Amino acid sequence: MQFPFETHLRVTYRDVDMQRVVHNSHYLQYAEIGRIEYLRARGMTYQEVVQRFNLEMVLAESHCYYKVPAHFDDDLTVRVGIFDIGRSSFKVGYEIYRKATDDQIAIIRTNHVCVNRETFKPVRIPAEVRKFFENDEIEFKET
Amino acid sequence: MQFPFETHLRVTYRDVDMQRVVHNSHYLQYAEIGRIEYLRARGMTYQEVVQRFNLEMVLAESHCYYKVPAHFDDDLTVRVGIFDIGRSSFKVGYEIYRKATDDQIAIIRTNHVCVNRETFKPVRIPAEVRKFFENDEIEFKET
Amino acid sequence: MQFPFETHLRVTYRDVDMQRVVHNSHYLQYAEIGRIEYLRARGMTYQEVVQRFNLEMVLAESHCYYKVPAHFDDDLTVRVGIFDIGRSSFKVGYEIYRKATDDQIAIIRTNHVCVNRETFKPVRIPAEVRKFFENDEIEFKET
Amino acid sequence: MQFPFETHLRVTYRDVDMQRVVHNSHYLQYAEIGRIEYLRARGMTYQEVVQRFNLEMVLAESHCYYKVPAHFDDDLTVRVGIFDIGRSSFKVGYEIYRKATDDQIAIIRTNHVCVNRETFKPVRIPAEVRKFFENDEIEFKET
Repeated sequence: MQFPFETHLRVTYRDVDMQRVVHNSHYLQYAEIGRIEYLRARGMTYQEVVQRFNLEMVLAESHCYYKVPAHFDDDLTVRVGIFDIGRSSFKVGYEIYRKATDDQIAIIRTNHVCVNRETFKPVRIPAEVRKFFENDEIEFKET
Repeated sequence: MQFPFETHLRVTYRDVDMQRVVHNSHYLQYAEIGRIEYLRARGMTYQEVVQRFNLEMVLAESHCYYKVPAHFDDDLTVRVGIFDIGRSSFKVGYEIYRKATDDQIAIIRTNHVCVNRETFKPVRIPAEVRKFFENDEIEFKET
Repeated sequence: MQFPFETHLRVTYRDVDMQRVVHNSHYLQYAEIGRIEYLRARGMTYQEVVQRFNLEMVLAESHCYYKVPAHFDDDLTVRVGIFDIGRSSFKVGYEIYRKATDDQIAIIRTNHVCVNRETFKPVRIPAEVRKFFENDEIEFKET
Repeated sequence: MQFPFETHLRVTYRDVDMQRVVHNSHYLQYAEIGRIEYLRARGMTYQEVVQRFNLEMVLAESHCYYKVPAHFDDDLTVRVGIFDIGRSSFKVGYEIYRKATDDQIAIIRTNHVCVNRETFKPVRIPAEVRKFFENDEIEFKET
């Protein structure tokens, strides 16, 4: 797959469990870091999105495939792309790689809905955001 | 769905994020607590499984549907059942409810593979474990 | 030391690190659970304190002595008492024990200040809270 | 204070709590990141220290002063220095700053003991490590 954006992070000591591998719950945090850095790279921090458009991009669903474990101190690459862009919903696809070995660590999908911050009712994806989402649209295969 | 086991937990302050709801990554920890308490209730702690059979039940995949947010101090019920029991693989299905309102908070599935602790090669589900897994088999619908 | 309150918790899988012991940062969460359960036992949840008195009990300082490591699945007892009760500030002392062995796991102190939720200026400890704090006052030695 | 080393990190969404500030327990993780990056900068990753010298640098005590809250997406600077270098024990001092405003967020101290990985008995700080610790010794005031 071709991903329009990538960011890097290092596995911290606290993320690693008794099996000496990254605990499964942390990959959702790595995806979140990828998503937030993606927005920043497109010129809008998550807080700016929230404040300018009075919305939150709530998480409706997440799906993780754990391929190969990541370890303490690994340098990881998180690749990010957008797909299934609807009226108020969109999906984000991620692949996480270990830089040193190019191992594919995890494939992740998160489904989001833009909702009004007060009413929690779905609202349209703001036109400015939709523009770069459409630019960064990928074909995403989960397995 | 009929679940053969349930356990209870309270949302801690640290689990809650800026949106005043449980952060998505913590539901995987709640599922883990459900899974571990299920094993204990069937007479075998996770550590006993690991040591007696020299295996780990590694996580291959996770799937979460976030239905309604949970909040700080909520009492949650985690229901647990087993499905798709193969030679070395099995799936665990969970539903998380808020006790006070009976709201369905999340539906979760985790796929596991029993692997040898040294070689990481798949090994059969131990007969003793298979016995109670088969007793606790459910039909699981993810949506 | 004599503690007026205690609560119990079980170490979850995710709390344990590569050294197979509870990661140091989680003891602050265990203290927090102790503090919140203490308030509940005295008839006031933390959320009720916040809403009725329009204040937060912010954390100004924490001190942990790590005595003996806790492990996955340990049943822990968290003992809680109050000391150094000032006009708007107070300290909470904790001892954490492993139930099975009565090992002392950690000694913790947290210093708090009651502040107005909007202005963040220090405010008096509410009279109702002060009453049970004074009832539960302990002599606390940190080592 | 003069610190011989500093590293940078960004506050992730998951680190922030209901009060919209970094949850107190995460500062210990930020200190840990500072300590591990310090070792790497001196030419030895933590894993290399563990394996070459067959020891762990266990945490005996931690002390945090929370000065001003950090928020989501803040760029933080973690400054690191060493003090009270004994035969097998040493202390690490940290100051955390917000880059944008130069606010002092937290002052942290962690006390460590080098122990043999199997026996958990205290062992001397390895000569090679002592050399750079002594080079990076600071006067550390906690308040």
